[in-house]
Amino acid sequence: MLRQLSTRHIGEVRIVIDLTSMSRPQSVAVVGASPKPGKIGHTILGNVISSGYKGKIFPINPKEKEIAGYKTYTAVSEVPEPVDLAVIAVPAARVLDVVRDCGQAGVKSLVVITAGFKEVGAQGLEMEKQLVESCRKYGMRLLGPNVVGIIDTHTPINASFSATFPQQGEIAFLSQSGAMLVAILDWSASIGIGFSKVVSLGNKADLSEIEFIEDAAADPHTKVILCYIEDIVDGPRFLDVASRASRKKPVIVIKSGTSQAGAKAASSHTGALAGSDLAYDVAFRQCGILRARTMTELFDLAVAFAKAPVPKGNRVAIVTNSGGPGIIATDNVEAKGLQMASFDKATIEELRANLPAEANIYNPVDVLGDAKADRYKFALQKVCADPNVDSVVVLMCPVGVTEPIETTEALLEMRQSFPEKPIFAAYMGGETLAGGAAMLAKAGVPCFTFPEPAIASISGLVRYNEVLDVPKGNGNQDLANIDRKGVKAIFYDVIKDNRLVLLGSEATEIAKCYGIPAAPVVLATSPDEAAAEADKMGYPVVLKVASPKILHKTDVGGVHIGLNTAEEVRHAFVEIMENVHGYMPQAVIYGVEVQKMMPKGTELIIGMTRDIQFGPLIAFGLGGIYVNLIKDVSFRLARGLTAREIEHMLRETKAYTLLRGYRGEKPRDIEALADTIRRVAELVNDFPEISEMDINPVFAYENGLSALDIKITIS
Amino acid sequence: MLRQLSTRHIGEVRIVIDLTSMSRPQSVAVVGASPKPGKIGHTILGNVISSGYKGKIFPINPKEKEIAGYKTYTAVSEVPEPVDLAVIAVPAARVLDVVRDCGQAGVKSLVVITAGFKEVGAQGLEMEKQLVESCRKYGMRLLGPNVVGIIDTHTPINASFSATFPQQGEIAFLSQSGAMLVAILDWSASIGIGFSKVVSLGNKADLSEIEFIEDAAADPHTKVILCYIEDIVDGPRFLDVASRASRKKPVIVIKSGTSQAGAKAASSHTGALAGSDLAYDVAFRQCGILRARTMTELFDLAVAFAKAPVPKGNRVAIVTNSGGPGIIATDNVEAKGLQMASFDKATIEELRANLPAEANIYNPVDVLGDAKADRYKFALQKVCADPNVDSVVVLMCPVGVTEPIETTEALLEMRQSFPEKPIFAAYMGGETLAGGAAMLAKAGVPCFTFPEPAIASISGLVRYNEVLDVPKGNGNQDLANIDRKGVKAIFYDVIKDNRLVLLGSEATEIAKCYGIPAAPVVLATSPDEAAAEADKMGYPVVLKVASPKILHKTDVGGVHIGLNTAEEVRHAFVEIMENVHGYMPQAVIYGVEVQKMMPKGTELIIGMTRDIQFGPLIAFGLGGIYVNLIKDVSFRLARGLTAREIEHMLRETKAYTLLRGYRGEKPRDIEALADTIRRVAELVNDFPEISEMDINPVFAYENGLSALDIKITIS
Repeated sequence: MLRQLSTRHIGEVRIVIDLTSMSRPQSVAVVGASPKPGKIGHTILGNVISSGYKGKIFPINPKEKEIAGYKTYTAVSEVPEPVDLAVIAVPAARVLDVVRDCGQAGVKSLVVITAGFKEVGAQGLEMEKQLVESCRKYGMRLLGPNVVGIIDTHTPINASFSATFPQQGEIAFLSQSGAMLVAILDWSASIGIGFSKVVSLGNKADLSEIEFIEDAAADPHTKVILCYIEDIVDGPRFLDVASRASRKKPVIVIKSGTSQAGAKAASSHTGALAGSDLAYDVAFRQCGILRARTMTELFDLAVAFAKAPVPKGNRVAIVTNSGGPGIIATDNVEAKGLQMASFDKATIEELRANLPAEANIYNPVDVLGDAKADRYKFALQKVCADPNVDSVVVLMCPVGVTEPIETTEALLEMRQSFPEKPIFAAYMGGETLAGGAAMLAKAGVPCFTFPEPAIASISGLVRYNEVLDVPKGNGNQDLANIDRKGVKAIFYDVIKDNRLVLLGSEATEIAKCYGIPAAPVVLATSPDEAAAEADKMGYPVVLKVASPKILHKTDVGGVHIGLNTAEEVRHAFVEIMENVHGYMPQAVIYGVEVQKMMPKGTELIIGMTRDIQFGPLIAFGLGGIYVNLIKDVSFRLARGLTAREIEHMLRETKAYTLLRGYRGEKPRDIEALADTIRRVAELVNDFPEISEMDINPVFAYENGLSALDIKITIS
Repeated sequence: MLRQLSTRHIGEVRIVIDLTSMSRPQSVAVVGASPKPGKIGHTILGNVISSGYKGKIFPINPKEKEIAGYKTYTAVSEVPEPVDLAVIAVPAARVLDVVRDCGQAGVKSLVVITAGFKEVGAQGLEMEKQLVESCRKYGMRLLGPNVVGIIDTHTPINASFSATFPQQGEIAFLSQSGAMLVAILDWSASIGIGFSKVVSLGNKADLSEIEFIEDAAADPHTKVILCYIEDIVDGPRFLDVASRASRKKPVIVIKSGTSQAGAKAASSHTGALAGSDLAYDVAFRQCGILRARTMTELFDLAVAFAKAPVPKGNRVAIVTNSGGPGIIATDNVEAKGLQMASFDKATIEELRANLPAEANIYNPVDVLGDAKADRYKFALQKVCADPNVDSVVVLMCPVGVTEPIETTEALLEMRQSFPEKPIFAAYMGGETLAGGAAMLAKAGVPCFTFPEPAIASISGLVRYNEVLDVPKGNGNQDLANIDRKGVKAIFYDVIKDNRLVLLGSEATEIAKCYGIPAAPVVLATSPDEAAAEADKMGYPVVLKVASPKILHKTDVGGVHIGLNTAEEVRHAFVEIMENVHGYMPQAVIYGVEVQKMMPKGTELIIGMTRDIQFGPLIAFGLGGIYVNLIKDVSFRLARGLTAREIEHMLRETKAYTLLRGYRGEKPRDIEALADTIRRVAELVNDFPEISEMDINPVFAYENGLSALDIKITIS
């Protein structure tokens, strides 16, 4: 219900959000502005003023005539000019009145700083609902409640109670935790990280990370979008927006509440409903979000993207004045899935001719401990110019003759000459290298103490290449032979029958409707019918009792395998019915399923589980009875699943090695497999009532597949 | 050859190394001392003097009478008093003469700073050999050549050319890279990390990390031992020494050259022969070394061990003034294999009674954004006193009312009141929290910006508990029924026959000699003999041609399975011989192996591969033809393999889940399996000529095992 306001789909037309009145307002009212230092309304007004905001400022306080030299009004509706943005910092009990007043005054956007809503329980939740309804009624967009506020360094405006107004930069930072945001601003000021925008998301009653990601993606001052989030409320819309944003600029997310214990803390903290972490992982990946695992990684990546170009490829060159750190860096290049660049012959010849004989002229290039700036510069120049090099890491240890300042100057020169290649530095030392490191920081070249985070940053940049490398459109051709009506007809029967678990024969029929190559399974209600069906499908066949209540069919004598003649089938039918009646006289029996026994192929599983946030997740991997033990399974969201993603999905598994032909075996029909996975995805996308689906095993052959044992559960 | 000097085993008596003359010498000669600034001999002499060294100092320089106020001698042999340590910094060509002179003068220890030995090629290697021989002749121990030197802050002495003399501390740091060592000293000085000893290992011609680990383990000023190493030369002795040292104090190693590319760099850098990384991983773990993966982790762990107690267990409490960071910390606790502490009822009641209603009184404890020092103190006090809490992490965000200094004082008070529980801090901010952070640093409480490294450090401390938890002795009972003579007799035949690969029947015989439950395999040379053997072992049997040259026995008609009578066996024997003669008329055939077909059990593998550094590595895991695909295998060194380690080894695998009884199956005979693994380890330890061994599959039953298809290769 609450989310309707922010879901502005009208038919097929998507209305792009316009948050201008929030981040670049022409005029701002501060409701609850106060002349008393220590009051939050005092801080906010002071911040708006001191941030250099150039629009009109209207303090609102019924008891004051003037605050900080600004004429003060009793209510927003008393302000004689239009108000774009109202920042509200009055006690919770008064917020609804203020909001109504703002609405009547034609205010466009609200930032509700005040806490005491959803996060304090049922009464607060009710108040928050009314708050949203009021905003909707008047067509106002709402940030909050329970936020620190919003900052835009390029407007500029600090509409928050953060004591720190950050320096201008290219990073937009959205945070669901207000204290975290305040902490990060304090920290970043001391180490010189700048921001374009900083948004405290709070209770996300109306606007959430979704709108601000979209807004930041369109913002020319923003190069990279960072989010700290604890939950996502509207999974599908998040995916939509994030997919488009991540193709424009990197979106880096740290999502907390990943652990079971963490999820508990998340729900007691914000009342958020945490999705399973696997689904987040898969969803982020599929929509091109780079997921950071630690705060350090989040900001290392942010700085990398803000300051360095994205390299063309994953080939890294290392230039060092010491072997040890060079080896560590080399280890890390491999550990992070990057590649040590192989230099051109010309590069090697030049290095050989001009560096000392003991220098290592291959990658990592060791210019030796006695290298001064000129030798570093020469090596750097050659390495940067090499077409086989995509990015460069410069390592420096402060041995006696090192020239940190001059070497840094050479590095910065190369940075200018090769703007398309990222150069990162690891200056391993303290005071001795501090001057050089400061020069790099000032010039926007990321500099670390140790090599590992430099390599990790490059790896992050390279990962973004994969995001950019996605072809436009989903690359899928429409699927032929889909019979939606057929599926609906089966579900109609199941629902009328008041069942949640489909019979094997029903699940098989559904699979067939979507072109999934299911092995024949037919429900028979008499020995003769069973025999006739078996004759039709061909021998050998299996007979299984069909009864939703009987879970362990073998235990009640409900299964006969390897039947080769009509006579055997008839006999088995009778025996099964007798057995089951004997064991479970009260079980409702629908009949007996006749299933064709298929030749054994490579044993796979295709399955689906539904995530509360992101919808159906498709699983693929090694099948059989050990599937939960071996855990060779990869996942993707069914939503928008492309042929390309399916290919990646297959490649991630060990099963893929089998499919390509393992130990001299012939390759399996990978094309048919990919097609079947797409059809399963289509099926579960089309029918949200399917809550779970398992096909285990799927037999893959040299030509084609057989889907056996299809289980479908609906809700 | 080179290593003999450092391997001082006389019979069974182990001589503990005494490096007193190197790290606490009574007198020092600096050979190559120079009055000229910029000369390395000038720097070293200056460092010895300025470090506050209290022993006698003798500069050696034939051209000078006096340097820096010290009487200068033409040669060490001219010094009229005994010289404990000579630091040599003369050109490489002169080193051997100087060393001889030192030997004749009765010098006890040498530090050869000079480079230009093994690392520059064959000629240098030859010179290095002579250097070692000269040292051995005169009974001198040698550090180097090609080192920065050695520092002991408690002697104190700086016998190195490092510009930085570190502050006193509890960390011993051994580095195979000199530049890395210089860099770390420079860096640590700027952030306030102190050291007990710093040793540059250089070419390790005589003394290596082995002796210095042993020395540091015995040093009362050292609490934790850090090593940066690129290779280990004497694996078994390293294991011996490290196993003993790690039980006295933590030994943390960063081993570079782990990647394939890294290993290449390592060998071009130091001429080191890098062992496989897997073997290092297994070896470090088995001898109680904590392996750091990054430089940051190395030093975070070092500081943690130097400053904090090792907690009793893995239960962590978190106290925070902000929800977000609390959730991040909670996520990390789980990700690092730690546990969120569950508080006592009394603790919860006290927190509930005294904290605001909105505070989270469960773990993580959220004292809320408006918490001042008193509230932090109250919560900390209760949490620290809780018997279910082993360690505590304090998180602080600089929200308006936070009292960083007073809160830090409270934290330090708790540190004093609960000395057995480590307290770590993450102060998320910059300038605002800098004062508090500085107080913590001074008091030796590790303080980070973000929560993750605090949790990682605690996880490191907890890992050390597992090292300490190893029972004395290996806990193994002697193995019964070992017939070494029988094995020797078989190898005698194989060697005489000039083969490297054993026949199946031979491998089976060897297994039986060590009590490994091998399925019967017997070589028969006639149809009657085959039939007689089959009668003896029982049916069904398999017949396989025995010929080392025939790899694919099935392809040449060399295998007959499922034989149930003597007549079938006789017939199969003849047919196999005819087939093989037909396909490969020139193959040498030893006969036909009769193998009893065993009932199928859980399919496992037990194998062995030999590492160049650490000797045989035992592998255990899921067996069968997909063993290399599934890769469910754990490894241990065979050397000193204890029953306890075997148990861990089993538990690490998915196979273990099957063995305990999966999906309602009966458990398998785990005891017999552990016994068999021990017997395989004993066998490969006893016979170094076994270069590879594979038993795949091993069938595990409810009672007992069957080892099938045993392959043994010798070298």
